[in-house]
Amino acid sequence: MSNAKLERARGTRDFAAEGALLRQQIVSTLRSVFELYGYNPLETPIVERFDTLASKYAGGEEILKETFRLTDQGGRELGLRYDLTVPMCRFIATNPNLKMPFKRYQLGEVFRDGPLKTGRYREFMQCDVDVVGVKSMAADAEMVEIAQDVFRKLQLSVIIKVNNRKLLNGILAAAGIKSEKAETTILTLDKLEKLGQAAVEKELEGKGTSAAAAKKLMLLMALKGGNSEKLQKLGKELGGEGKEGIAELRQMLESLEEKGNVEFDPSLARGLAYYTGSVFEVFLKNSEIKSAIAAGGRYDKMIGNFVGSEREYPAVGISFGLDIIDDVLGMTAKEKKKTTTAAYIIPIKIAAAEASKVAKQLRQKGISTDIDMNGRDVKRNLEYVAASGIPYAVLVGGKELRENRITLRNMKTGKEESVTLAEATAALQKA
Amino acid sequence: MSNAKLERARGTRDFAAEGALLRQQIVSTLRSVFELYGYNPLETPIVERFDTLASKYAGGEEILKETFRLTDQGGRELGLRYDLTVPMCRFIATNPNLKMPFKRYQLGEVFRDGPLKTGRYREFMQCDVDVVGVKSMAADAEMVEIAQDVFRKLQLSVIIKVNNRKLLNGILAAAGIKSEKAETTILTLDKLEKLGQAAVEKELEGKGTSAAAAKKLMLLMALKGGNSEKLQKLGKELGGEGKEGIAELRQMLESLEEKGNVEFDPSLARGLAYYTGSVFEVFLKNSEIKSAIAAGGRYDKMIGNFVGSEREYPAVGISFGLDIIDDVLGMTAKEKKKTTTAAYIIPIKIAAAEASKVAKQLRQKGISTDIDMNGRDVKRNLEYVAASGIPYAVLVGGKELRENRITLRNMKTGKEESVTLAEATAALQKA
Repeated sequence: MSNAKLERARGTRDFAAEGALLRQQIVSTLRSVFELYGYNPLETPIVERFDTLASKYAGGEEILKETFRLTDQGGRELGLRYDLTVPMCRFIATNPNLKMPFKRYQLGEVFRDGPLKTGRYREFMQCDVDVVGVKSMAADAEMVEIAQDVFRKLQLSVIIKVNNRKLLNGILAAAGIKSEKAETTILTLDKLEKLGQAAVEKELEGKGTSAAAAKKLMLLMALKGGNSEKLQKLGKELGGEGKEGIAELRQMLESLEEKGNVEFDPSLARGLAYYTGSVFEVFLKNSEIKSAIAAGGRYDKMIGNFVGSEREYPAVGISFGLDIIDDVLGMTAKEKKKTTTAAYIIPIKIAAAEASKVAKQLRQKGISTDIDMNGRDVKRNLEYVAASGIPYAVLVGGKELRENRITLRNMKTGKEESVTLAEATAALQKA
Repeated sequence: MSNAKLERARGTRDFAAEGALLRQQIVSTLRSVFELYGYNPLETPIVERFDTLASKYAGGEEILKETFRLTDQGGRELGLRYDLTVPMCRFIATNPNLKMPFKRYQLGEVFRDGPLKTGRYREFMQCDVDVVGVKSMAADAEMVEIAQDVFRKLQLSVIIKVNNRKLLNGILAAAGIKSEKAETTILTLDKLEKLGQAAVEKELEGKGTSAAAAKKLMLLMALKGGNSEKLQKLGKELGGEGKEGIAELRQMLESLEEKGNVEFDPSLARGLAYYTGSVFEVFLKNSEIKSAIAAGGRYDKMIGNFVGSEREYPAVGISFGLDIIDDVLGMTAKEKKKTTTAAYIIPIKIAAAEASKVAKQLRQKGISTDIDMNGRDVKRNLEYVAASGIPYAVLVGGKELRENRITLRNMKTGKEESVTLAEATAALQKA
């Protein structure tokens, strides 16, 4: 029988022990930091009504083209969620008595039927933390602090770039770009890092911006100096909305205890239309990976629009890309955990039931224990233990066992010693 | 604007803080027990190629009717997984160098577009643990032990019913039912508990079984006594395959340390065709919930067939139903955890930045801390803290703070005391 068809769907991945354990470790770090800041978990389904995903206040036309569609047996149009923000909006809309502020985190798979490139998958995991119902910049600062905490705990050096959409709008106005051109200009600006100044100017001119305006815009983007210095220089150039954006950014930056890895970048735009204030993107320091590993911002209008209510739902959040973080940690980790199993029992010429009692005793002490159930010889068993990355083999023979002793083999050093079961337990608990 | 369309997809659910925390707790219990027995995590995608799900060795025609189908932009036929066993088979088939035995667990959402009844969902979570590559009944016993450990840790009283397909086939033969009728007879037998003896006899006769054979079958099913007594009685009636089944069951039962909650039930069939030996189902003791909360068995042929190899892949596993377990625990839990947040800081006539320093200090000590960012008054803040289920409020005023003190309010007792920050930290760490 040929099984040429047994393949994964394109753009999806399996994670066996080593990969899955790394993901679990990252997830548990994210979860613990989110909870440390007072956020509670929310779980929403993977399948949503297509109506919800296609709402004009949701992800927009582009993302809808990449949305997987399906129907249920009742003919209802459904889709696989493409992010966790739209399901949160739907949750808020369907739970009108929710207490505000609503601080929630969600970790879950999302799906986009897009083109495949390195590091881009059709099924991937987003890890979002958002607070709804707070206007104060303290909430925006909290998002930056959460990112600082997460990457400190993951031991990754990062730069957190911050900007503010109001300030960006002020810059556009100061450069003489009309407000109806703001959105398309921002889309082009978003490519500044990638394409460089000349190419961006050219693209802007192609979109009908005057050469003078494009030049002025580039000048404002290229201001040098520290965060406050740049803000001060811009303050002199900008009016109205721009000044408000500067004040917000200042408030946010002042709330931060650790400012060293936070960089104000006036060109940071974030493609999405729904941001209304702060925007942030997190990049690895000294890395070949140039894409953001976390990103977010303030979106004060979206939920209210979505819910269809006059009520205001100011909101700010940040999303961590599990897949890129685990790619990075997978590349840099010195020693990769291949299993959580601490001990593997090898029965030597005794009944399996006898050896199995030792396994039970170790497990009762909380030691993750595997045992040979195939009656293999010692050599093959030790090969299996080594290949599985289990740190200790426990050799159990009849005579030794009658004296309540076993032989503990440290798989790394190869050292074997005959110890009492109690001694073995203590050693394994420490391991 | 009307939002009549903002609904969940049918048969799906949201889990806000309380529900999500309960699910996390169950998941973490399952995970820790699985790891205690030496199983490693596997993650496979939610989306699989439809070919894989539709393989004739996979879930079968019935389940395929309930499979959600979709296509990617390349026109490839895909489906949402309906279980975690088929993806595991696909994983084994696409990883031919996998070391055996392969002990894996997987927790994940599965999807079935079936009729909706109480406790049945279209998106639900399965928690599977399987060992591939072990023929010995020690592996079957391990599945029962894992179930015993899981439900002991979840504090649920259960009965684990066990049977063996070979024994069941022997019983059918002894009753005079032809082997070509075995499968359909087993499907009817599976309803014995629900329909009662008379109805089952009638259904069997409807399927062409003689009244005498149906009667004999019922007699063999109704044997009284303890597990060994029933096995002994059956041993006298059965030959060949039946005797083999009895020997296997005996071996499995003998390997168990705790036998009190394990009941041999010769009528236990499990609907699925692929089981070849042991079968088990776990039921709640003294509960109105009559459906199984975990179930599994041995399937020695399925993976080999699936992989399309002559090589043998003996396998046994058990699957825990997270949704029914959390329904049960949700109903019986005395006190439900509404949040993991331990403390909520209420600034009293001081700058938010000042109060925020206290939050940072508590978080540095690992205490999950929320803080008012809306400048609400004390009364409204305390209402929010109470409604959120946060156990302690930390009132921070200017004068107190200068003396490095805060007021700690126990939300349950209403007791307030002025303590130093260090004292508060110690109290909150213990809470």
